Amino acid sequence: MAVSTESIQRWGEGGHGIPTSLQEFLDDRGMGSVQPRPAVDLAQVAVRASRIPAEELGALTGVYDDLTRLRCSGGFSFIDLCNRRWPGRELPVVDVVLLPRSHDEVRAILDLAAAQQWAVVPFGGGTSVVDGVDVTDRLTVGVAFWQMNTVRQLDPESGEVLVQAGITGPELERWLQARGFTWGHLPQSWERATVGGYAATRSSGQASTGYGRADATVTKMRVATPRGDFLLGKAPATAAGPDLQQVFLGSEGSFGVITEVGLRVRPLPEKKVYEGMLFSTFDAGVRAFQQLAQDRVNADVMRLSDADESAVNLAGSGLSGLKKRAFDRYTALRKVDGGCLAILGWEGPKDVVTARRGHAHKVFRRFGGVGLGSSVGRSWEKSRFAGPYLRDDLLDAGYLVETLETANEWSRLKGTYDAVHAALRGALGLCLIGTHLSHIYPTGASLYFTVITPLADDPVAQWKAAKVAATDALVATDATITHHHSVGRDHAPWLSAEIGESGVELLQVIKAHLDPDGLMNPGVLGLG
Amino acid sequence: MAVSTESIQRWGEGGHGIPTSLQEFLDDRGMGSVQPRPAVDLAQVAVRASRIPAEELGALTGVYDDLTRLRCSGGFSFIDLCNRRWPGRELPVVDVVLLPRSHDEVRAILDLAAAQQWAVVPFGGGTSVVDGVDVTDRLTVGVAFWQMNTVRQLDPESGEVLVQAGITGPELERWLQARGFTWGHLPQSWERATVGGYAATRSSGQASTGYGRADATVTKMRVATPRGDFLLGKAPATAAGPDLQQVFLGSEGSFGVITEVGLRVRPLPEKKVYEGMLFSTFDAGVRAFQQLAQDRVNADVMRLSDADESAVNLAGSGLSGLKKRAFDRYTALRKVDGGCLAILGWEGPKDVVTARRGHAHKVFRRFGGVGLGSSVGRSWEKSRFAGPYLRDDLLDAGYLVETLETANEWSRLKGTYDAVHAALRGALGLCLIGTHLSHIYPTGASLYFTVITPLADDPVAQWKAAKVAATDALVATDATITHHHSVGRDHAPWLSAEIGESGVELLQVIKAHLDPDGLMNPGVLGLG
Repeated sequence: MAVSTESIQRWGEGGHGIPTSLQEFLDDRGMGSVQPRPAVDLAQVAVRASRIPAEELGALTGVYDDLTRLRCSGGFSFIDLCNRRWPGRELPVVDVVLLPRSHDEVRAILDLAAAQQWAVVPFGGGTSVVDGVDVTDRLTVGVAFWQMNTVRQLDPESGEVLVQAGITGPELERWLQARGFTWGHLPQSWERATVGGYAATRSSGQASTGYGRADATVTKMRVATPRGDFLLGKAPATAAGPDLQQVFLGSEGSFGVITEVGLRVRPLPEKKVYEGMLFSTFDAGVRAFQQLAQDRVNADVMRLSDADESAVNLAGSGLSGLKKRAFDRYTALRKVDGGCLAILGWEGPKDVVTARRGHAHKVFRRFGGVGLGSSVGRSWEKSRFAGPYLRDDLLDAGYLVETLETANEWSRLKGTYDAVHAALRGALGLCLIGTHLSHIYPTGASLYFTVITPLADDPVAQWKAAKVAATDALVATDATITHHHSVGRDHAPWLSAEIGESGVELLQVIKAHLDPDGLMNPGVLGLG
Repeated sequence: MAVSTESIQRWGEGGHGIPTSLQEFLDDRGMGSVQPRPAVDLAQVAVRASRIPAEELGALTGVYDDLTRLRCSGGFSFIDLCNRRWPGRELPVVDVVLLPRSHDEVRAILDLAAAQQWAVVPFGGGTSVVDGVDVTDRLTVGVAFWQMNTVRQLDPESGEVLVQAGITGPELERWLQARGFTWGHLPQSWERATVGGYAATRSSGQASTGYGRADATVTKMRVATPRGDFLLGKAPATAAGPDLQQVFLGSEGSFGVITEVGLRVRPLPEKKVYEGMLFSTFDAGVRAFQQLAQDRVNADVMRLSDADESAVNLAGSGLSGLKKRAFDRYTALRKVDGGCLAILGWEGPKDVVTARRGHAHKVFRRFGGVGLGSSVGRSWEKSRFAGPYLRDDLLDAGYLVETLETANEWSRLKGTYDAVHAALRGALGLCLIGTHLSHIYPTGASLYFTVITPLADDPVAQWKAAKVAATDALVATDATITHHHSVGRDHAPWLSAEIGESGVELLQVIKAHLDPDGLMNPGVLGLG
């Protein structure tokens, strides 16, 4: 079983070019003129030769081909893509990729790795955007979960499913929906990422406001660590001491390997309505969302884009000609032209969806929101996984494109928004920044930033400078350093700002106990 | 500042005797004839003399009176009360009680305790029912939080309040409600327990289905440990690694002292409806609750009593004479006489309350539920904190009365219900067991058992045998050993059944790091 080449230098097949509407935007902002930067031929990407011979694997069978080892040695951040598109050096990769089929086979791999003192890098969908998948000089085995993708058990009465950690979103949803259930976890990485990866990184999805973050949906976990096995999660809730599941959620492979996961699932919703809404300003939309959060009447999907992101999204939503002119007249008349687009997705029993929507529309009207109907909502839904494909095309064309995200309390969101924009513009100069709010909590919300700017000669250095400036801005405004991208190696320098030196020290102590030789995914969370 | 004597041998003033309706029940079940067992005179309760002289406290001032030291050396379990009502020996108590006013003063106490190698027992409201407050032979200081009860800050925009850990429910609610907010955490211990205690034990309250468990409402924590200080909780949600707040939530004073807590709070609800409903069987009610949980249309308060508890509650609700006969005719006609009582509490914006109730009533009707109107709901609400006072009177009269609780998935609830009943009857013989479901989650619910039986000659041994049998039954049916009473010392022998030997070992490692001398509340969670 070898990796598909499509996921190495690009997210997918792509090649559709930049949409005219976005290109016009870039032209307008003076970023129209860039040098195309196609990836080097994949055959030219040189990787480090394996240093672990097959005979050292004992009874295990390893995959040695270069592309599989390359794929299992990085994630999907802008920098990961730079490394694989424009390498300029031999790339360090895992020495061999192992494909366990069960918890016991993972256990055997960890035991062998401990005996041989090999580092172990778990590989789910390889969609990390924070350098969560990477190698050091150490002899390293990659552990890919492509053969651990079965559903173990469904408890329909309790609404709970037990799966192997390597199952992907599409595999799980296909299985569940055929039985009348849905997990409802839909991040941008959905097409590739695995349940184990979601749990290990505390992923959030587009419907997390309603369905809950991935970590909040985890009911059970089986984990293999160098120290031994863990089986956690008894009842829907417990007061039996510290919650050790919360130690492994977000552990990013640093303490061990999550092998099986229990997830709460829902019956497929009776009713589903996706709709658009326009607010005259970002602040008006934020205040409307905040009111709903305080009322505990959230939509399941709640997104609010700022003016720039709204303009790009609306321009790209296919409105043209007569329709476009009618839209422009309608929004101008209602004084929300050039305003901020909200996407609301409602799911559940029909009567309750109707009531929640009714209440929300009252609140929206109070803040000047103007309904755009369901076609805008459906259009967003149809293109919900388009981001990574568009990135491929932007990179080809010569643009840097990357995202970052955070969360903060309602009273501090505006400060964080402003500080991150200033930091990115300060570091990058001319750039297009689209921002949206997309996960709503009673006390606050997330902010998600997408940046596009012409590629510099050294794109890695270009982005690193921007990332440092932006993350410093997060810390300065008391926002979290990451709402759902996790820590990886990229955010590790700021972890002590998040949890304090004593928090970092406690993680080191846990690591030293569970992984005394420091073999597990060395470097993530800043842990040896 | 000394303790009030009322909270030593009794919860409150009481002395109202057993309600006629309950006494009739006990008579009917053949448990009418018991010997009254009044508590010994408080002056006769002898306590261990202090072994820590005032001069060893340095700049700190200690409270030395016997009653304060006694009060700060136990909780409020049946066994705690036995010890203080019928001691029969000199009671081991803390050597001195300290009353810090701030985090820094707690810090100073921990530093002194480390220097002197004194054990430290934190004392919130002293309402533990699992031996969470207790002493060993070791020199021990009690740390009571009576002077750490101020609100530090309210962020009305974010709906978040920052408090000192010693504030009690009534103090906090008075403060919040004067400003238009509520925390909504209402356990039976509400009149005495503290926010820090709720967090340290993962408390749940009567409205936790809607407002969330206490631990779920915690947004920030400041903790003083022998190793150093922690300041945790940045944003409403984060993916920045393992959640260390979840290590201190439920830590029961074993790792350190929680000194300040951030809590999410809500605006006071626009509308509040409490109502009763009757189901012909417990199972029908459970299935109705389960359907609502799957629909994600919970009430804020959702309680369902089994037939015995319903009969006792309805008999005690003050119905008599004509009203009683009308009630009996009404319920007989609808075939729910002798059935199971549900209490539903709805809070929130008016339109949404109406819609949620409307949906719920449709579901209830489908399962044969019959509405009893709001007077039953109000009657329950009025007596929501009556339990501990009634216990005083039952103990005086000569009855053992104690509670235990658990949670399980929907598909396993019935098995747990049956197993616990069988275990309690097996151990206690003749007894009255009232059971209710009271915290609803998507995948399951809690079960709460109240047991009344005539006191044996050795009440402590009598209850210990029942508790062992019941907890074994929980473990055998894969239920959690505690849903909201925490582990304390009583549940510690079963903790490895809950989180595995590797889980217990991990807790030991964390303890050894944070509290290397094993000074903090020794014994809880089974930790040194």
